[in-house]
Amino acid sequence: MQAAPLHIPMKALVFDTFGTVVDWRTSLIEDFSRFGSQRDLQVDWVRLVDDWRAEYQPSMDRVRTGKEPWRTLDQLHRASLDQLLDGRKIQGLTSEDVDYLVTGWHRLKPWPDAVPGLNRLRSKFILGPLSNGNVALLINLAKFAGLPWDMVFGSDLWRHYKPDPATYSGVCRLLSLEPQEVMMVAAHNYDLRAAKELGLRTAFIPRPTEYGPNQTKDLVPEGSWDIVAKDIVDLADQLQA
Amino acid sequence: MQAAPLHIPMKALVFDTFGTVVDWRTSLIEDFSRFGSQRDLQVDWVRLVDDWRAEYQPSMDRVRTGKEPWRTLDQLHRASLDQLLDGRKIQGLTSEDVDYLVTGWHRLKPWPDAVPGLNRLRSKFILGPLSNGNVALLINLAKFAGLPWDMVFGSDLWRHYKPDPATYSGVCRLLSLEPQEVMMVAAHNYDLRAAKELGLRTAFIPRPTEYGPNQTKDLVPEGSWDIVAKDIVDLADQLQA
Repeated sequence: MQAAPLHIPMKALVFDTFGTVVDWRTSLIEDFSRFGSQRDLQVDWVRLVDDWRAEYQPSMDRVRTGKEPWRTLDQLHRASLDQLLDGRKIQGLTSEDVDYLVTGWHRLKPWPDAVPGLNRLRSKFILGPLSNGNVALLINLAKFAGLPWDMVFGSDLWRHYKPDPATYSGVCRLLSLEPQEVMMVAAHNYDLRAAKELGLRTAFIPRPTEYGPNQTKDLVPEGSWDIVAKDIVDLADQLQA
Repeated sequence: MQAAPLHIPMKALVFDTFGTVVDWRTSLIEDFSRFGSQRDLQVDWVRLVDDWRAEYQPSMDRVRTGKEPWRTLDQLHRASLDQLLDGRKIQGLTSEDVDYLVTGWHRLKPWPDAVPGLNRLRSKFILGPLSNGNVALLINLAKFAGLPWDMVFGSDLWRHYKPDPATYSGVCRLLSLEPQEVMMVAAHNYDLRAAKELGLRTAFIPRPTEYGPNQTKDLVPEGSWDIVAKDIVDLADQLQA
């Protein structure tokens, strides 16, 4: 656990959300399994959730590279789910059922350390998600999970997905802060790499079970991040919040 | 007190901030008077605050009409203060002193009903300021005053000042809500008029001393607003929050 000295005062922390703050995979599997058994639906929900998430980066990449026009993450989630259900010939879902599944991303549980850690950090810093989720999704999620944000930085504010520079620099501009006054917190090395490139501080929090028991990536820090913390409470400890 | 029946469920409330949620005039006069006596500065702070605020609409109008490029409210406040100090030949202020005065707008006290009323409303609705303040100002103000926002809608999100339609419609777009699912709450009739024009619901809360003891405008509702409430606690009562 290295911690670079922080000479310039840090004013704000922005958090990757899916994976870093909330446990999307366990939450969705539990939520959908309960839903499925109530409706007597025969669906392999673990496989559905994993395959759905596998479409996440490719669907954003198509927007990032201009192959598709801007669409919010809620819209991308719906499109990729429709395609999955169709391809697997999963039937018997009404349009309300599909709505329920798509808004599953608004009902994710925080990792156990997230809310206590954020509440401590909030007394000292400005906090917000910096997520590929859209503002409406992130607000609903924050209300559901009790995430104490000061501001919600959703990708629809700039119509760009991370790791596009417009997202990190957009946060600094809206906060009227210099990049070194802002710390990006993420469980994903690619996200920190892009933030560091623009001069933001970086904190890595490994979430080794984000993708389930067989996760192979982002198990360790792959850059000289300013802080490596075992969870958000540890981050609060290291930042003396 | 009329209350129009709310057939379509309302999901979010957005609040004008200066005047409606916080008492900017009393706050600035008290803050600056204390500051001035500590520094032994001979300034008529009441007059300075009133004259400064008198520049508020004209300065935004110059941006609105394209006579000046986009500038945040913090930047407009600084420019108009510089001009006032210069015109009055008020001397002896360091550049740190001017910073202190400009960020006075980040340290405003809520009206006594604001925090209790907002805390009740927040359990039922999404809450945010919809203000001509910029995001950084509004975040600092929320932390100072304890305003429990879910999201901060500052004018720099769309680089437009109210009553430009881009601000009200921008809120609905970011919330993924229809205009009738969103209520604009303000102490100013002009703001409600513009919101209603776009289909938002409206609530008027008179603040008859916002401009001091001799206030002549916005003492009564001047349109058929959905709700007229005597303060934010009364608004929570009327909305059964």
